[in-house]
Amino acid sequence: MAQKVEFWFEFASTYSYPAAMAVSDACARAGVGLVWRPFLLGPVLAAQGLDGSPFTVFPVKGAYMWRDVERICADASLEFRKPSAFPRGSIHAARIVVAHSGEPWVPAFVRAVYAANFADDRDIADAAVIGAMLGAMGLEADAILAVAQTPEAKAGLRAATEEAQARGIFGAPSFTVGDELFWGHDRMDQAIAWAARG
Amino acid sequence: MAQKVEFWFEFASTYSYPAAMAVSDACARAGVGLVWRPFLLGPVLAAQGLDGSPFTVFPVKGAYMWRDVERICADASLEFRKPSAFPRGSIHAARIVVAHSGEPWVPAFVRAVYAANFADDRDIADAAVIGAMLGAMGLEADAILAVAQTPEAKAGLRAATEEAQARGIFGAPSFTVGDELFWGHDRMDQAIAWAARG
Repeated sequence: MAQKVEFWFEFASTYSYPAAMAVSDACARAGVGLVWRPFLLGPVLAAQGLDGSPFTVFPVKGAYMWRDVERICADASLEFRKPSAFPRGSIHAARIVVAHSGEPWVPAFVRAVYAANFADDRDIADAAVIGAMLGAMGLEADAILAVAQTPEAKAGLRAATEEAQARGIFGAPSFTVGDELFWGHDRMDQAIAWAARG
Repeated sequence: MAQKVEFWFEFASTYSYPAAMAVSDACARAGVGLVWRPFLLGPVLAAQGLDGSPFTVFPVKGAYMWRDVERICADASLEFRKPSAFPRGSIHAARIVVAHSGEPWVPAFVRAVYAANFADDRDIADAAVIGAMLGAMGLEADAILAVAQTPEAKAGLRAATEEAQARGIFGAPSFTVGDELFWGHDRMDQAIAWAARG
């Protein structure tokens, strides 16, 4: 019997963008269940002694990453514009997903946030921007934003981030299938195949 | 007209192993020329402020890497045994390739060194081990090792390492096609396709 894929993502992460846009369809094609697992990469990197994104700590790697992501998006016919700010704060969007996991609008919301950040260069760190996106989806923006500010939502995202770290995750996106960890958007197909094998 | 792929590798690098074993055949299938470009990763990492392999500097990443390489080799039906020492000194083997580039035995020698390090757990840092491998290939081991100790061979490897850095390379394996850089064994097919496009 097929296992589920848990998709660990950070809204600020460039390589999470092409993965987030493709993962629903890829899992559906393989008949594999999908669990959306937002987390904050900052505390995970800090625990490794990294003071910020590896792409700013190591500028040579950063220069490569922007070109690489541009090529990946072109290959996937995915719009891409280098954001004018990087990395952008993801805490509002991540708390919303944690607090509403299982809601049918979550996958579309995740994709909308990534497109806002990496195709439309909108400031996803701004709760008003997130609220406008929820409204455009026909959702109760104010109520959803309020839930994301509750102590439960905040604790939920902290717990998710601690779980990511406990499971050996050190970057985004990552995929887990049971105890197997796969790192990087380019491991998505391998993770799904692993899950399909059961 | 197809362009050439330059394959930048470090004999100590785990992810360079599956790439080195596959790159000749993959380029031949695509009708793309291949240039073997050994370099030393240590000075390139040091220039980024990394004091050693990222897999020892960041142990969580290192733990993942060993499992990931094991899975990759299993998928490729490639023998793999975690070396009892890591990373192993690669200067003798790298100087030999630089000093004899274009010789018809170089691809087989590269593969033999990788298999020694990552399948047979032999100490490739030891010139005697390298000499025994050359002898087993029916080559003049003493003469080849002597050439690798000349000032020209040493300067050649230094120049290759400086060129790697100047071209924005920050890890191994990497592939270049003209000015396009691709990092990681999992970018091999993409690099070859880029070269085939001309």
